[in-house]
Amino acid sequence: MKIVALAGGIGGARFLRGLRAAAPEAEITVIGNTGDDISLFGLRVCPDLDTVMYTLGGGIDEEQGWGRAAETFAVKDELGAYGVGPSWFGLGDRDFATHIVRTQMLAAGYPLSAVTEALCDRWRPGVRLIPMTDDQVETHVVVEDAGNGRRAIHFQEWWVRLRASVPALSIAAVGAEDSKPAPGVLEAVDAADVVLFPPSNPVVSVGTILAVPGIRDAVAAKTVVGVSPIIGGAPVRGMADACLAAIGVETSARAVAEHYGLGLLDGWLVDDADADVRVEGIEVRSRPLLMSDPDATSAIARAALDLALELKRAEDVR
Amino acid sequence: MKIVALAGGIGGARFLRGLRAAAPEAEITVIGNTGDDISLFGLRVCPDLDTVMYTLGGGIDEEQGWGRAAETFAVKDELGAYGVGPSWFGLGDRDFATHIVRTQMLAAGYPLSAVTEALCDRWRPGVRLIPMTDDQVETHVVVEDAGNGRRAIHFQEWWVRLRASVPALSIAAVGAEDSKPAPGVLEAVDAADVVLFPPSNPVVSVGTILAVPGIRDAVAAKTVVGVSPIIGGAPVRGMADACLAAIGVETSARAVAEHYGLGLLDGWLVDDADADVRVEGIEVRSRPLLMSDPDATSAIARAALDLALELKRAEDVR
Repeated sequence: MKIVALAGGIGGARFLRGLRAAAPEAEITVIGNTGDDISLFGLRVCPDLDTVMYTLGGGIDEEQGWGRAAETFAVKDELGAYGVGPSWFGLGDRDFATHIVRTQMLAAGYPLSAVTEALCDRWRPGVRLIPMTDDQVETHVVVEDAGNGRRAIHFQEWWVRLRASVPALSIAAVGAEDSKPAPGVLEAVDAADVVLFPPSNPVVSVGTILAVPGIRDAVAAKTVVGVSPIIGGAPVRGMADACLAAIGVETSARAVAEHYGLGLLDGWLVDDADADVRVEGIEVRSRPLLMSDPDATSAIARAALDLALELKRAEDVR
Repeated sequence: MKIVALAGGIGGARFLRGLRAAAPEAEITVIGNTGDDISLFGLRVCPDLDTVMYTLGGGIDEEQGWGRAAETFAVKDELGAYGVGPSWFGLGDRDFATHIVRTQMLAAGYPLSAVTEALCDRWRPGVRLIPMTDDQVETHVVVEDAGNGRRAIHFQEWWVRLRASVPALSIAAVGAEDSKPAPGVLEAVDAADVVLFPPSNPVVSVGTILAVPGIRDAVAAKTVVGVSPIIGGAPVRGMADACLAAIGVETSARAVAEHYGLGLLDGWLVDDADADVRVEGIEVRSRPLLMSDPDATSAIARAALDLALELKRAEDVR
């Protein structure tokens, strides 16, 4: 069985770990969001790819959900002593090594997809991890600037430095229009039995991946099941509500499903708190969606997969 | 009083710390060797500049003589886990931060001299530290290659990886011919009352600095006193003998003075073990030269400075 999943960071990574456990025989390809990528201290940082890689590779800081376990911060402290920032992005020493290797390979001419594959040679995440594109796509957020009208800031500045405390007037995946899917992305989608959307951020994670020309159409041709990142009107984790508000979408399981749309989603897994949700043309099922531990997460992934397989069989019959 | 010193790494840095203590009112400009510089993991590493900066700035690992005090090695261990080398060059986490800042500034277009000044803003070494050149000069060592004739390797590979265990057939400062002194170098030498050669390596430290066109002539016009890096036929520290052998110079205080030459050196400070050394046209003085502690080192620096001032007065009278 071949499964493709589009994934952002923490929520996506945990879901994928559950999926791997739920379907150990499946060949899983993960298309990772790179819109959050940022250059810091001259080094290329890919937060979502790394979170997937570290989580599935057993190197993640479990409590925090991102960054390396048993991390230290000597490099960051020293950069601060040099007065070199930003200080608001928490890069640990172990994590720095990943960015050093990545930056060195990119400088040598390797595309990000090849670099990611090389990094995964170490982490052996048990899935094939491909960045959505080898081109540079950066998510920018337009915010009010006191007295100066509006300005666009890098997603990470809004998300990490400002903790999304300033309303996003709009969110744009800069460069997406001119980007191409990384090698293997469309091939993996075409070959997939089903496509899953983990409970990742529908705007800045899954939405950004779908903004790479060609990916949405390829996905739409498949049986697609998503797991709602919204439970009872609030994000399961993170600040997806702030992102949804920026694009005029209500923070509800129903509204997100409608946002993805009938042309894309075949099934939608919501929490029992949202059991009454109905979306025309999309098969909605409810169950507990809190990824409280590996077993619970694995059961959620299994339910999403089972729904997808059921819908696919029904389609195949038609 | 204005003093210029040409310095390599550990020996030079310790001498300079003694000189600063011995002449606290003096304006000291240090011209640092950059021939040992190397790019590792995509980062620009300047071992000699950093050793001077860390030593005079109070950040050095005193026992080792290079690298940062209380250093940790998380980044290096992680790079090793990725299979990315070289592993033989010991870059610590704190040290990495210096190279990250430097590389980022170089990539932004700042010359190495400006980068060094910015790094020294933090370390406040109490001297003005200028790299010999902003151009790339790399010391290469020609060695026998088993079955393959000869090959040139980077100085650090010979010095650090091979511990100079393979004879150097020749040593070349690649790029030196086409390099220019960094801004401020010639001006500092011209303005200096005296020029001192610390007991740095006469081939790959002081020799490399003198190989930058213009520096030797400017220095030769000044009263110059050197401190012998050789005591009783052996290097005080390091493997200067292996370098001297490569250029056909005996490992002795006399031979090194003759190598620098009458046109360059006015005075030469040797150890009491070499009290019988005489070099025509060069004033040789002897005293204990072991830089065993800060006080002893300061007394050596004071003696070199006193000899230089004495020779300068004598010249001024003529």
